[in-house]
Amino acid sequence: MSPAFDPASPVFQIHQGGKLVVSSTLPLAYTPGVAQVSAAIAADQALAASYTWRSRLVAVVSDGTAVLGLGDIGPAAALPVMEGKCALFGQFAGINAIPIVLDTTDPDEIVETVARIAPSFGGINLEDISAPRCFEIERRLRELLPIPVFHDDQHGTAIVVLAALRNAATLTGRKLADLRVVISGAGAAGVACARILLAAGIGDLALADSRGVLHPGRTDLNPVKRELAVTTNAAGLTGSLESALAGADVFLGVSAGAVAEDAIAGMAPGSVVFALANPDPEVHPDVAHRHAAVVATGRSDFPNQINNVLAFPGVFAGAFDAGARQITEGMKLAAAAALGSVVGDRLRPDYIVPAPFDERVVPAVRLAVAEQARAEGVAGELG
Amino acid sequence: MSPAFDPASPVFQIHQGGKLVVSSTLPLAYTPGVAQVSAAIAADQALAASYTWRSRLVAVVSDGTAVLGLGDIGPAAALPVMEGKCALFGQFAGINAIPIVLDTTDPDEIVETVARIAPSFGGINLEDISAPRCFEIERRLRELLPIPVFHDDQHGTAIVVLAALRNAATLTGRKLADLRVVISGAGAAGVACARILLAAGIGDLALADSRGVLHPGRTDLNPVKRELAVTTNAAGLTGSLESALAGADVFLGVSAGAVAEDAIAGMAPGSVVFALANPDPEVHPDVAHRHAAVVATGRSDFPNQINNVLAFPGVFAGAFDAGARQITEGMKLAAAAALGSVVGDRLRPDYIVPAPFDERVVPAVRLAVAEQARAEGVAGELG
Repeated sequence: MSPAFDPASPVFQIHQGGKLVVSSTLPLAYTPGVAQVSAAIAADQALAASYTWRSRLVAVVSDGTAVLGLGDIGPAAALPVMEGKCALFGQFAGINAIPIVLDTTDPDEIVETVARIAPSFGGINLEDISAPRCFEIERRLRELLPIPVFHDDQHGTAIVVLAALRNAATLTGRKLADLRVVISGAGAAGVACARILLAAGIGDLALADSRGVLHPGRTDLNPVKRELAVTTNAAGLTGSLESALAGADVFLGVSAGAVAEDAIAGMAPGSVVFALANPDPEVHPDVAHRHAAVVATGRSDFPNQINNVLAFPGVFAGAFDAGARQITEGMKLAAAAALGSVVGDRLRPDYIVPAPFDERVVPAVRLAVAEQARAEGVAGELG
Repeated sequence: MSPAFDPASPVFQIHQGGKLVVSSTLPLAYTPGVAQVSAAIAADQALAASYTWRSRLVAVVSDGTAVLGLGDIGPAAALPVMEGKCALFGQFAGINAIPIVLDTTDPDEIVETVARIAPSFGGINLEDISAPRCFEIERRLRELLPIPVFHDDQHGTAIVVLAALRNAATLTGRKLADLRVVISGAGAAGVACARILLAAGIGDLALADSRGVLHPGRTDLNPVKRELAVTTNAAGLTGSLESALAGADVFLGVSAGAVAEDAIAGMAPGSVVFALANPDPEVHPDVAHRHAAVVATGRSDFPNQINNVLAFPGVFAGAFDAGARQITEGMKLAAAAALGSVVGDRLRPDYIVPAPFDERVVPAVRLAVAEQARAEGVAGELG
């Protein structure tokens, strides 16, 4: 990471002026006729879904407290990342998205603010909001709003991890229920991965934060970690991450903490290592390959990249297609199943997830999410 | 106005799906390089002006309480109008704009909400917020935020009215200081017109609301009207709008209240009638022409259309060019002067303001506003 500002460098040249443009689909939009459209919506609010852009518009909302690789840099500095995220929504799923960065880090104020601007949007993508505030903010917004709310750092990562892990299990002749998983990191991604893996029927699972494995005896846990200390760790582990890894089938790293080669070497035969810290994986893939059967990272320059862009464009597109009022656990599981199945017969140790630019991904995830939404009855009247 | 919903009609067909699209200027925007840009802004916030889209991005903010011709229809129904406004920003000045409609009508909450999302934007255009709340909301946001805040229903109208009235005075051999003006309507547009005309040196001016002329003896006035009752009406009028019009030089209608032909007939010789209510002017232009030397309306199917689009695109473009932190009274006066001067030698009774699509308008207003901002020293470091 080079934080130096060099206006002559290609990176700064291409970001000059930002990355997004708003344009109109009409040659002259501000016609007297617009009053008829507004009057019709005033009489029947459901018409807003058809006659405004909001039903396919996502707000990418951040307070800039947990920007990947940079941490708490504030709203202005987070804006280039949010613009990039919005560009991905457009490029991958044809969804309009605009960045909303917030001059507050208070959970009450964030919830209040997003709720007040929500009539402008069809969905809310929370981004780079630090844990544990992100859990409460997402939960309260999901309860308050009649539109999909999705914290991508949690659920985008969790969906792709589940898809990849199911394929890794198949490849090594096991089922999810057979696996003992150790997650390093109990922030947004770690918590969401734990929850989706439990929902998918994983055999056993323990999380570790920087102070070791989460267990009910610890007194230093926030409410979310305390809940997970009870619902995970069936084996009753109490020690360090490294000790938990002894004999484990899966290491899932979603922190920046390095793991020693010895700990990886001590895992069960045919182990699976997902070292997702970026840009420096918890264990280098070359080192992991000495011991593990399958290795994945968050990096584009190694095989098996766990990239959120495999999930969020299709998830929102499917939710919008169905007119879904929320993104349920079932819809996330459906997204993971659809994403994993794109790999198909080509499943190999270096191909357990599709590449980000595989054009089959978004249509597959989108269809599965929309079908699940309709099956669960979370679709709106227009779904 | 036909409020009927007919999905087969052309109006509803062209509004299907809304009117705005967000696209990216980069083929693949979410690159690792973006972290460098964010790190640079974190170290120097001023770089956000150059390396995000916000410095040329306007939020068109409304609570949907005073939508032209429709009144208080709420945020969802206001959205098509706000999309249209955003399209005009793009079409007339190449400025990105996005609609933010609010699920609150409380002034404290509106101010709080806009302030919290302000780091996402380079300017705030308040739209269709009812009086007198609009005055307080704009004032507080101007005080709070380091970016231009502009309530177009007030100042857009006021700028175009001043430009047109100065030309009408020239045409009839008078100066602004010679004119006695009566304004019908003391809402957003009426109040702002009164203020800019006073700032421009108008001779005498009285406002009337639905209960008659504003004067210090009235006990039914909100704070803004009370202030104007003192600063206007030098002649000490106390009666009805019609009685105030006797001998007046200018009638400026910014309400939906009709005015009888007799009252227009009783104005001074060479009178000027601006009947701006839409779609039904306070007095029909054909009737006004029987008595007045110059007539203007808000309608596109009569000469001399007073259309806000003559002002707001150039005002924001000029403010952005200068990196201005606010839009001052001086910048509004400069905009009016520049707009009026576009008419030039072609000044005639049916041509006192340029047509909305006159391509000279935006560049002239923009340049004048930017120069004034720099002269006043309200430009930011990057101006």
